Amino acid sequence: MPHLYHFEDADGSDRDLLGGKGAGLATMTALGLPVPPGFIITTEVCRTAMTTGALPDDLWEEIAGAVTRLEAKTGRTFGAGPDPLLLSVRSGSKFSMPGMMDTVLNLGINDEVVEDLVAWSGDPHFAWDVYRRFVQMYGDVVLGIEEHRFQGVLTELRARRGIKDDSQLSAEDLKRATTVFKTIVEEHRPGRLPTEPMDQLRGAVKAVFDSWGNKRAIEYRRLNAIPETLGTAANVQMMVFGDLGEDSGTGVCFTRDPATGARRYYGDYLPRAQGEDVVAGIRNALNLDDLATLHPDSHRQLLEHMSRLEGHYRDMLDIEFTIENGVLYILQTRVGKRTAEAAVRMAVAMAGEGLIDRPEAVRRIDPVSLEQLHRPRLPREVGRKPLVTGVAASPGAAVGMVVFDADEAVTRAKAGDAVILVRPQTTPDDIHGMAAAVGILTSQGGKTSHAAVVARGMGKPAVTGAARLQVDTGVGVAHAQAREVRYGDLLTIDGTTGAVYVGAIDLEEPETLPELADLLSWADDIRHLGVMANADTPADAAEARARGAEGIGLARTEHMFMGERLRVVQRVILATSKGARTAALAELERLQVGDFEGLLEAMDGLPVVVRLLDPPLHEFLPSRLELEQEALRRVRAGKPIDDLRAMSDQVARWEEDNPMLGLRGVRLGLIVGDLYRMQARAAVTALRRRLQAGGNPMLEIMIPLVATAEELRRMRAVIEEEVAAAEKTTGLDLQVPIGTMIELPRAALTAAEIALSADFFSFGTNDLTQMTYGLSRDDAEVHFLRDYLDQGILTNDPFQTLDPEGVGRLIRVACEEGRMANPGLTLGLCGEHGGDPASIAFVRGVGLDYVSCSPPRVEGARLAAAQAELNTGETVDSR
Amino acid sequence: MPHLYHFEDADGSDRDLLGGKGAGLATMTALGLPVPPGFIITTEVCRTAMTTGALPDDLWEEIAGAVTRLEAKTGRTFGAGPDPLLLSVRSGSKFSMPGMMDTVLNLGINDEVVEDLVAWSGDPHFAWDVYRRFVQMYGDVVLGIEEHRFQGVLTELRARRGIKDDSQLSAEDLKRATTVFKTIVEEHRPGRLPTEPMDQLRGAVKAVFDSWGNKRAIEYRRLNAIPETLGTAANVQMMVFGDLGEDSGTGVCFTRDPATGARRYYGDYLPRAQGEDVVAGIRNALNLDDLATLHPDSHRQLLEHMSRLEGHYRDMLDIEFTIENGVLYILQTRVGKRTAEAAVRMAVAMAGEGLIDRPEAVRRIDPVSLEQLHRPRLPREVGRKPLVTGVAASPGAAVGMVVFDADEAVTRAKAGDAVILVRPQTTPDDIHGMAAAVGILTSQGGKTSHAAVVARGMGKPAVTGAARLQVDTGVGVAHAQAREVRYGDLLTIDGTTGAVYVGAIDLEEPETLPELADLLSWADDIRHLGVMANADTPADAAEARARGAEGIGLARTEHMFMGERLRVVQRVILATSKGARTAALAELERLQVGDFEGLLEAMDGLPVVVRLLDPPLHEFLPSRLELEQEALRRVRAGKPIDDLRAMSDQVARWEEDNPMLGLRGVRLGLIVGDLYRMQARAAVTALRRRLQAGGNPMLEIMIPLVATAEELRRMRAVIEEEVAAAEKTTGLDLQVPIGTMIELPRAALTAAEIALSADFFSFGTNDLTQMTYGLSRDDAEVHFLRDYLDQGILTNDPFQTLDPEGVGRLIRVACEEGRMANPGLTLGLCGEHGGDPASIAFVRGVGLDYVSCSPPRVEGARLAAAQAELNTGETVDSR
Repeated sequence: MPHLYHFEDADGSDRDLLGGKGAGLATMTALGLPVPPGFIITTEVCRTAMTTGALPDDLWEEIAGAVTRLEAKTGRTFGAGPDPLLLSVRSGSKFSMPGMMDTVLNLGINDEVVEDLVAWSGDPHFAWDVYRRFVQMYGDVVLGIEEHRFQGVLTELRARRGIKDDSQLSAEDLKRATTVFKTIVEEHRPGRLPTEPMDQLRGAVKAVFDSWGNKRAIEYRRLNAIPETLGTAANVQMMVFGDLGEDSGTGVCFTRDPATGARRYYGDYLPRAQGEDVVAGIRNALNLDDLATLHPDSHRQLLEHMSRLEGHYRDMLDIEFTIENGVLYILQTRVGKRTAEAAVRMAVAMAGEGLIDRPEAVRRIDPVSLEQLHRPRLPREVGRKPLVTGVAASPGAAVGMVVFDADEAVTRAKAGDAVILVRPQTTPDDIHGMAAAVGILTSQGGKTSHAAVVARGMGKPAVTGAARLQVDTGVGVAHAQAREVRYGDLLTIDGTTGAVYVGAIDLEEPETLPELADLLSWADDIRHLGVMANADTPADAAEARARGAEGIGLARTEHMFMGERLRVVQRVILATSKGARTAALAELERLQVGDFEGLLEAMDGLPVVVRLLDPPLHEFLPSRLELEQEALRRVRAGKPIDDLRAMSDQVARWEEDNPMLGLRGVRLGLIVGDLYRMQARAAVTALRRRLQAGGNPMLEIMIPLVATAEELRRMRAVIEEEVAAAEKTTGLDLQVPIGTMIELPRAALTAAEIALSADFFSFGTNDLTQMTYGLSRDDAEVHFLRDYLDQGILTNDPFQTLDPEGVGRLIRVACEEGRMANPGLTLGLCGEHGGDPASIAFVRGVGLDYVSCSPPRVEGARLAAAQAELNTGETVDSR
Repeated sequence: MPHLYHFEDADGSDRDLLGGKGAGLATMTALGLPVPPGFIITTEVCRTAMTTGALPDDLWEEIAGAVTRLEAKTGRTFGAGPDPLLLSVRSGSKFSMPGMMDTVLNLGINDEVVEDLVAWSGDPHFAWDVYRRFVQMYGDVVLGIEEHRFQGVLTELRARRGIKDDSQLSAEDLKRATTVFKTIVEEHRPGRLPTEPMDQLRGAVKAVFDSWGNKRAIEYRRLNAIPETLGTAANVQMMVFGDLGEDSGTGVCFTRDPATGARRYYGDYLPRAQGEDVVAGIRNALNLDDLATLHPDSHRQLLEHMSRLEGHYRDMLDIEFTIENGVLYILQTRVGKRTAEAAVRMAVAMAGEGLIDRPEAVRRIDPVSLEQLHRPRLPREVGRKPLVTGVAASPGAAVGMVVFDADEAVTRAKAGDAVILVRPQTTPDDIHGMAAAVGILTSQGGKTSHAAVVARGMGKPAVTGAARLQVDTGVGVAHAQAREVRYGDLLTIDGTTGAVYVGAIDLEEPETLPELADLLSWADDIRHLGVMANADTPADAAEARARGAEGIGLARTEHMFMGERLRVVQRVILATSKGARTAALAELERLQVGDFEGLLEAMDGLPVVVRLLDPPLHEFLPSRLELEQEALRRVRAGKPIDDLRAMSDQVARWEEDNPMLGLRGVRLGLIVGDLYRMQARAAVTALRRRLQAGGNPMLEIMIPLVATAEELRRMRAVIEEEVAAAEKTTGLDLQVPIGTMIELPRAALTAAEIALSADFFSFGTNDLTQMTYGLSRDDAEVHFLRDYLDQGILTNDPFQTLDPEGVGRLIRVACEEGRMANPGLTLGLCGEHGGDPASIAFVRGVGLDYVSCSPPRVEGARLAAAQAELNTGETVDSR
């Protein structure tokens, strides 16, 4: 296989081999766009270098041949007059990694060629500026000399001349700067600045390939889940000069508005500049209307090219262009990044225009991004620069006072302050502080860090991994760019972009997006997988319903036992007489009837799956450790502790070494008399009342933590007794499907027998993952999960994305064998994975009927389910 | 199918249908032995009654026909003179349940028939005694009138006459007793004593079938794992009378000595008595030599029958016989119960005699019983009656002072006393007390109770479920039979028989049994499954080797970290500087080298599998709760607690909510730098030293708690580095197989990939059971496992006997797929299940190479492995 391809010979659809930039250049060349000629050294070369530790020996010969062909094509000569050919070398991998890898421009210049360039251009200022740029960039990128050493020279020159912009420097100044730059390079890397153009090219190519392995690129790939093994291509291209004179310039444009999705061309143009000047934002750029005035022909051509490219790629594109002496060149194109709102608008609009079909519109949108559409946001124009930018970990924006401690966050929030919790990183010990905060900012960790995961789960904006922020929680101060942020200071964070601003910025409520309803209705037409919601209150149920949930797949009754209910629950647990216990149980039953009525009413006409109590009873009591700590406080204060002693004895009866593996779920139902019966009776009473009130309630009852069919058989019998009793007294026909969670490996392995007593299975993949891996999520997150991910021992957090080999295999077995034993069995999944697109794709492949997720994730799940349907046949591991 | 079979028509091999007693009667009839004629109402009738709630309608007609046939055969008439036929109805299920179900004798008597019987026998004393016995037994068994009401009458009569034995009562006294008995019955159950013989028979048959479901029978079946569904047969048989006169009598005999296994006939004979009198032990019985003097013909015939039966059954038999007027009848036979010692001796002897072959000898012995051969025992003749008899829960005898509290047991044991821990039941909180005691006695729980299981695990004698003992731990006293046992009193318990004696009885050391070595060598010839031992010390290793272990399958390094080592381990964990940590680790390494050298030397020439550290590090620290409790004590004593605070902060860093699912096993190896590397280096150093000392050490290293192949790959690389380093410095070729525990469901499910980095798998079925069921053994034992077993939600304790459907399925998958991926993979099991015969049979079926169990269970495992081989094709669930 050749190591390189000329743009005109390359297959623009092969992004794996050519990288994104190379593929774009090849495609544009094939479309007849004015692309400066060049060639692509493939990603395969980079992969070879990673494996063998060196670039292939015959690469240089091939490059030399390719340069000769370029010279022939352009009629210019590399590194020689009268028409000198200068080259750029730019990185470009399959997935865009903006700014992470290296680029070297203006290759092929030296003390002789600069004079040729003066002659060729008739512009010594231009020629020496090109030489200056080359020395500076080669010194920085290839030789690793710190950028500020060069900047210092320019800063001093500008100061001496009293000017603000390098372009105002004279040719003589630039010549002097070039000489000084060469001295700096010679000082730091003696003899390492090549004067021979081919040596310069070799150095640049090597540097570009090496940059795949630099630290920030590795970190970026880790945070964005880009495989290490892909490698980058290196694109070698003839230089065209936006800085050649008044008739030259350079710009960036989008075929539609990347912020709103509006169908209008959009772009920046900087006269007399090279591309890096646009990115650096040194001067204020002009817009496309200005360009139309300055260069009407180029402007017209540019619009034609944009239209051509959008027609070809059928997507919004981001394009870089240069005008050299009035001639337009297109230097790069790629599918443009956009906000979630813009993505939805564009996809629906393009489907309306016939550019794409509806399934493609559905496919275009990242399901996870939909959550941000419902969160307060920053205005389109913020009008200030971010202090730092971290990882966009949980979308939405938040404004609040800085607090460095979780306890303090709770205190300030109680006092009515909006709080941004700022930490190097968070742990489960910080959960209460995170819950109290309006936003979370950390200096460490990426999209899968604890802070990111928990914030997304809570629906709170978060920026993580803001590495340039130094957080000292001890002193209570954070530094960035020589600026201090102290306790109580106001910050604004944007979890959608990762930007962090000093001070308060007024947020905007999101507009409702009519296109979203269209898109989701298309998704609903495509998908077969049902989407339900996990909801424990009527308010949650209503929100879920508004987002399109087709019922409640998981109503956790233990959440109804918290708050002021806790005292009643404790009376049940601690009752010393049968009478006291019965009375407390009766009170709890009365409360539960109300809970269930509320849920059934909010979801009238749709199923509501009530899960009976799951956690161990001691979760409703203080721990012995807490009681001992309180006892110590009291003894020191000279107060009696007898009541604590009594409580401690009670707690000791219930406490467990490993509560996750203890007396919980159906075990409680079987061992602690009447608890499950009470809950079942309360649910059936609620059902009856809703029926009698003329509603259409659809109650289902679910039993957690079943390990053996016998457990389910017995518990089912108890529930059926309560249903039958209610039917007898009311004469109503109460249809109550009874099912079980499949959340223990044994339940999955014996699903055939369990299915005989179940109307439905709901996979509790959080517990199933815990048991299958033998790890407690909470403990693992504190002690080693982060390290496992950082070190690559795990490639995914199995609590975020379902593990297909282990947990998934159990699900597959349970589905197949459960359905075989009971063809009428309904199959669902409830848990965090229910909102994760990869997990949704997996369970769709396995043949589940529905997923159930938290209300904010329902829309995303609808979309992901449709995408999974569209991708049928492509994905889903099967063993 | 007929409801009943006459003895001569029945197939004596069909114990399922006929029950054990009926099958024996049929067999003896077919062999021509003098069996009184009769018929067997099948177990199928009992099962029908259990299902439908009633005996079949046509049963009574069939019985009437069978009685008519009996009358024809015997020439007697049921319930009429001149030759009255009296009948017995006796229960008899497939498995012997001695004394648990009902028997009614002397049916067919009433006010008229008794006169016929007087005429027939010429002995009014006999006739009225028969009548008296009938009323008493029918009243007790069929009508449920308390036995003591009848006994009271006899006691009073004996007192009035000044005699000690009912047989000395006059005919007139017996007639009067009969009248009083009838009055008692009429008072309590008016009109319920039938005078019509067929009504009596019906009542007795119903009572016998009903007795399958009585409370003590259910409890017995539960304790002995006999299925509820089997049902009993009812044997209806002509009465012959051992109490007819001086030429009559009744007895029990064994074909060999059931206590020692010696080849000699052995039995008791009681002249002028019915069978129940022998069992009740009212009078001192004669022996078989006496019988030879009294009835030489009957004695000769009896020996012939015994020989005939042993030849037929090819086993030692327990026979009941009656002599009626000088004529010998055989009433029952069954394979006789025996001690473990007798079982081994007899099996080996019978193989020597050619009665059975060696495989049959191997098959005969209960593998679990072998443990008791090595324990101190009671002398053959104890010379006193037990205070109570409970469940023989853990074999061997023990003598010690009574202690009612686990802490006190520890204190007394430290003071040098031998202690018997007496509790209503034990929980894991009592473990330290159990470890300190020489024996355990509980009033509740059977063979699978916590006390039984733990005691067997510890190799300590235990009697459980001594229900007649009322234990009041609060007061510190136990009552039985109006006798008090107090703290400090001496008791002797016999875990082999369940007997509990007041006072000290001198125990005997077990003799070595040469037959055992023969038997085990035959087993070794048969089995393919290897048997290794779990051993952590050279002493354990030596014991295991003496018992025939073929290596150490599990050396738990954490056990080497206890005792005085604990301080060094704590220094490693709590080190605040790198230097301090390195120094502590180095000290630990030095100690570990010694540990491993000792093991390798004790097992020279056999494999030693060293498992790297498994438990979480906080197990080596005090808990925060303990520290708080200590702090409270100190504050009250006015002492400072700063050091406790510091320790508590340290502990808080490590403590986990669910340590079983936390930072342990390979996770420690990967996260806590250098710990596993240190252990591997220490093991390799020990290997090197043993090699240099001229030994033949065979080290293997095992990594616990692997969930993903990547964990194993990385850890294996670390160990291989240490091996390679040692090879480099010494020039030796160190062969160190590296393998993994398979103890997490995910490891089993991804065994194919894991196998690529493993030389062996060892199934850790304790953890695997915990994770598969999602239950912690310790917590479950305290909170619900007992209830689950009592209520029949679980039929077996899955920690005793491997669960084939869930855990077993994972093992099967891992074996098949692991071997497919790596055909050289060795497969073993280490854990409690390694000593359990049913589990051994399962894993043999799956194709494991070896099991590893505690040293006292090695011999049993060798035997069980052979039995599993012999039973190939019969058993092993396969799905």
